[in-house]
Amino acid sequence: MANRYSFTITPRDVDFSCRATIVSLCDYILESAGKDADVLGFGLRNLIREHSAWVLSRMAVEIKRYPNQYECFSIETWVESVEKLYTVRNFVVRDNQEEVLAEACTYWSVIDISNRKVKDLTAFPAYLKYATGQSLSVKPIRVRAIHPELVGTHQVAYTDIDFNGHANTTRYIGWMINTLPLKEFETKMINRLDINFMRESMFGAVVNIACERKGDALVFSLSREDTALCNAMIEMKPNL
Amino acid sequence: MANRYSFTITPRDVDFSCRATIVSLCDYILESAGKDADVLGFGLRNLIREHSAWVLSRMAVEIKRYPNQYECFSIETWVESVEKLYTVRNFVVRDNQEEVLAEACTYWSVIDISNRKVKDLTAFPAYLKYATGQSLSVKPIRVRAIHPELVGTHQVAYTDIDFNGHANTTRYIGWMINTLPLKEFETKMINRLDINFMRESMFGAVVNIACERKGDALVFSLSREDTALCNAMIEMKPNL
Repeated sequence: MANRYSFTITPRDVDFSCRATIVSLCDYILESAGKDADVLGFGLRNLIREHSAWVLSRMAVEIKRYPNQYECFSIETWVESVEKLYTVRNFVVRDNQEEVLAEACTYWSVIDISNRKVKDLTAFPAYLKYATGQSLSVKPIRVRAIHPELVGTHQVAYTDIDFNGHANTTRYIGWMINTLPLKEFETKMINRLDINFMRESMFGAVVNIACERKGDALVFSLSREDTALCNAMIEMKPNL
Repeated sequence: MANRYSFTITPRDVDFSCRATIVSLCDYILESAGKDADVLGFGLRNLIREHSAWVLSRMAVEIKRYPNQYECFSIETWVESVEKLYTVRNFVVRDNQEEVLAEACTYWSVIDISNRKVKDLTAFPAYLKYATGQSLSVKPIRVRAIHPELVGTHQVAYTDIDFNGHANTTRYIGWMINTLPLKEFETKMINRLDINFMRESMFGAVVNIACERKGDALVFSLSREDTALCNAMIEMKPNL
């Protein structure tokens, strides 16, 4: 079962070029995931009753075109598979002419809030039945930085944290791309993002942002003291 | 003529308490202003044809209650008056039971993009006719800090800037409140915000954030080198 959700790009979503940023595009993708999980009866409000929560572990997004300010678009999303430790959810972002703007694939786990341990998803037969088997060509890869250089720090602040008390997923993407010079975005666009989440970061944590270039791609590594928080790879191509 | 616009609070809008932040509430207020100006034929896309743009100079918001995650709410907005150098636009934010959540008042000017000079608004008879004379009790005040202490800095980054190439209005509010300890928000809520905008800040600018306490209120002063950018006063009261 695939459902579609409609959105409109607002002024706060766009950059200087009047196009949605990768951060806001990912915000909408994750919002559609949250809505759809709720429609299926496995939303956060359902999970909270069982002291559980969804945790995003990996995400890959391939972008053909970023929607413009005030542009309406839709996100179709469905569950591909349900494994013991994670479930795969896919997304196709389309404009109003049905042209594909982006495709995304995400891996999610359910954790027990009290001990932060991952729960066995196959123990939810009502959820298992939503596994469609329908895949996309885009799949999250494992990202590793070998010798990244420190390019910035960010202290997790009030507007970064969500209802979980930890930094909102898409804030990490913002911290990374905000270390880049503006000219990167003037001539290029991010056409692929891979992100792996390892640990949460809480209010007040000082996050080290390190980066290394790998061919045309940028590999980011976020850490707090000796703890790896998140790795990501960003591919950019000339803007059209 | 007053129009109403409907919105829903999304997960990225809320803080740890699952309520909208002051930043996202102001985002929606300004989004309704943009939509309504467009409906009246004086939106940014109209102004851009005459090489002009709206600039927000002052804003005051009084908040009774912040909407919750997924809560639907409406913003009614209208033009109160049109003076030579500025126009006054008011807002009433209501929940779906018609309870008032917040009221806001904003002062706007139109500038010529090429020389950044303010244009005479009384020269737009088609706009003048929208002045309703209908006021609210909330009015923006002039905010001044006397001896503020430096509490932080922020370098204007890619995700801060909007289509104008300068930092988005509501980002300033985020930079200010992000200097506060989390416990301020655990027991208190911002029940009034006054903000005065003096100068823009462009990509790469290092913004100094200074603050002083004035009774129960916090007065913030944002500057770049010797240039004052923005002053704001935040009043907080015990959370209910």
